[in-house]
Amino acid sequence: MKGLTSTTLLLDEQISKANIDRMAAKARQAGVQFRPHFKTHQSHAVGKWFQNAGVQHITVSSLKMGLYFDQDGWKDITIAIPFNVHETELLSTFHDDTTVNIVLMSPMMVGLVDARLQQDVNVMIKIDTGYHRTGIWHEDTSLIREVIEAINTSKHLHFKGFLAHAGHTYNASSVEQIQTRYRECVERMQGLKKQFPEALISVGDTPGCSVTEDLSGVDEVRPGNFVFYDLMMQNLGACHYENIAVCMAVPVVAKHTDELKIVVHGGGVHFSKDFLPQKDGSKRFGKVVQLNETGWSTPIEDLEVVSLSQEHGILKANSKAAFDQVTEGEFLGILPVHSCMTSEAMGEYLTLEGERLDHL
Amino acid sequence: MKGLTSTTLLLDEQISKANIDRMAAKARQAGVQFRPHFKTHQSHAVGKWFQNAGVQHITVSSLKMGLYFDQDGWKDITIAIPFNVHETELLSTFHDDTTVNIVLMSPMMVGLVDARLQQDVNVMIKIDTGYHRTGIWHEDTSLIREVIEAINTSKHLHFKGFLAHAGHTYNASSVEQIQTRYRECVERMQGLKKQFPEALISVGDTPGCSVTEDLSGVDEVRPGNFVFYDLMMQNLGACHYENIAVCMAVPVVAKHTDELKIVVHGGGVHFSKDFLPQKDGSKRFGKVVQLNETGWSTPIEDLEVVSLSQEHGILKANSKAAFDQVTEGEFLGILPVHSCMTSEAMGEYLTLEGERLDHL
Repeated sequence: MKGLTSTTLLLDEQISKANIDRMAAKARQAGVQFRPHFKTHQSHAVGKWFQNAGVQHITVSSLKMGLYFDQDGWKDITIAIPFNVHETELLSTFHDDTTVNIVLMSPMMVGLVDARLQQDVNVMIKIDTGYHRTGIWHEDTSLIREVIEAINTSKHLHFKGFLAHAGHTYNASSVEQIQTRYRECVERMQGLKKQFPEALISVGDTPGCSVTEDLSGVDEVRPGNFVFYDLMMQNLGACHYENIAVCMAVPVVAKHTDELKIVVHGGGVHFSKDFLPQKDGSKRFGKVVQLNETGWSTPIEDLEVVSLSQEHGILKANSKAAFDQVTEGEFLGILPVHSCMTSEAMGEYLTLEGERLDHL
Repeated sequence: MKGLTSTTLLLDEQISKANIDRMAAKARQAGVQFRPHFKTHQSHAVGKWFQNAGVQHITVSSLKMGLYFDQDGWKDITIAIPFNVHETELLSTFHDDTTVNIVLMSPMMVGLVDARLQQDVNVMIKIDTGYHRTGIWHEDTSLIREVIEAINTSKHLHFKGFLAHAGHTYNASSVEQIQTRYRECVERMQGLKKQFPEALISVGDTPGCSVTEDLSGVDEVRPGNFVFYDLMMQNLGACHYENIAVCMAVPVVAKHTDELKIVVHGGGVHFSKDFLPQKDGSKRFGKVVQLNETGWSTPIEDLEVVSLSQEHGILKANSKAAFDQVTEGEFLGILPVHSCMTSEAMGEYLTLEGERLDHL
């Protein structure tokens, strides 16, 4: 990589496009609607790669992010977070022909939002199928009925379906456990659909959608992270190192021979602070790779990213030989633990072809 | 707080100015130069409060941040991170009458930087006095001499002094331990000064400078976080809740009665992911306060911020009464664990007077 002067998030366009094509094909084969979550990349430019792959429906995690993509001709946008009633009026700022789907879960919020609405909006009811972050528990059909009833008697809201996120696949300890949790989520949503046949059912998390061969059985899938993947996904078995599409280029700013320690300019403000917990209680904040003319290498196993502070990253070499391979002043690459948070922190990408791509 | 519509970082100007005045007075009384670290606020507007308090020297943690403040008439700027040689040419873009001090630690880097320099620059040598993040170990005077020798034989570099950061005060388990670690740092730097009497010695971390009454004994102090403080500092005993100058306003987007769980729109993209580890192994990501007309209350002890994902924050109530106090749709306040990272994530402040302040 020529021309690098400071900490930069590199994006391998070919890897990312292949990730998009693979997931789009899998959804197509299963006959389910593909509504990728755009919170990972948050980029007009990357969004266009999805459009070129035939994608028409998208998921975002804030109203602001929805408006960002409304500029690009996306005509069906789900805002997949419990809706913030104070932003109701902003729903009128989407293009008139954009279908917006919001998430609600209580009769009270249905009433509050409806009272402030000027135009029609679809509602997805968030269902908890086991992650326990938010959503109505899938067996609580009396509350679900109450919410649907409130939507049906509202002026502007239309009940569209149920939305679940099996986020506990991120904490699974094996591929089999990811598959089990994803399958359980699908089955619980199918159970709901039997009772509410008019409802669309939407699921989808990157681990589940990556390790499940056949995505059929639901109406819609919403994975997001797969566009870039990251070490968390590799560690779970949801991808290989070769599928990781982003890599931070960091300058080596110091070496300390006595402790085989290497200091890079790359810290929490660049990566955020997600980490991979190790068996011995320590943390790893990335994997070191060599940058080369065509991108980056597979990880160098004898260099570890052991800590991050606000701007500094600390690497430890496991041997003098590994330490000696690194030169003060050179750029190393670090694969991120959590590409969504890292992209958010950096706010920009540099492709291997030298093009700068936007981030919200 | 009227007029809030989405997740917003509130800044109490009066608290922050009092924090600035208190630390500036303490430095003045001790007769040491006050060179506050601006990485916490990264704001032209907040920087002006320091100028109004008589501050003339500042610290930043990247060249980019240095250039941001060079626009405001700051004439003496220390870039307190091992210098990235690839940014050498950018040093010429500072105003001609701005004194820039960079950090170097090896004869090799001194040579590389000097070869690319067009103008004179001061060098601080980073010293490790016990934190073990980076820096030359304070007893390694042979390496220190080598680096000084390299600087003295360079064309454009001038040796100015030694810079240390006792960052291990952040991990202290008592105020006494903060004081001990800070004092040890000062004494080790004083030891160096005996051998290199021409060198300025610069130390300073917020915990150490907050709990040490008499800051004398060094030439310069560089605390930063004190401008806003945060829960990490309160937890350490370095400040009181009443000294915390920033608070995130978050809308309550869902309540789940069965688990006494409250969902707010406020996650890792707003707070970053620093947390306070609890004795039982769980984590806390903030303290909940009530917003009111004049700012915010002290923490509500029976509501806990138990997890953050990318956009969601999850609160647990310790009692039904506490749960019932919160209404769907209202705004709550959350005091941040780490104000530097939270400010960085938000990129903007709203004062209690309704003014929006910049962040780099």
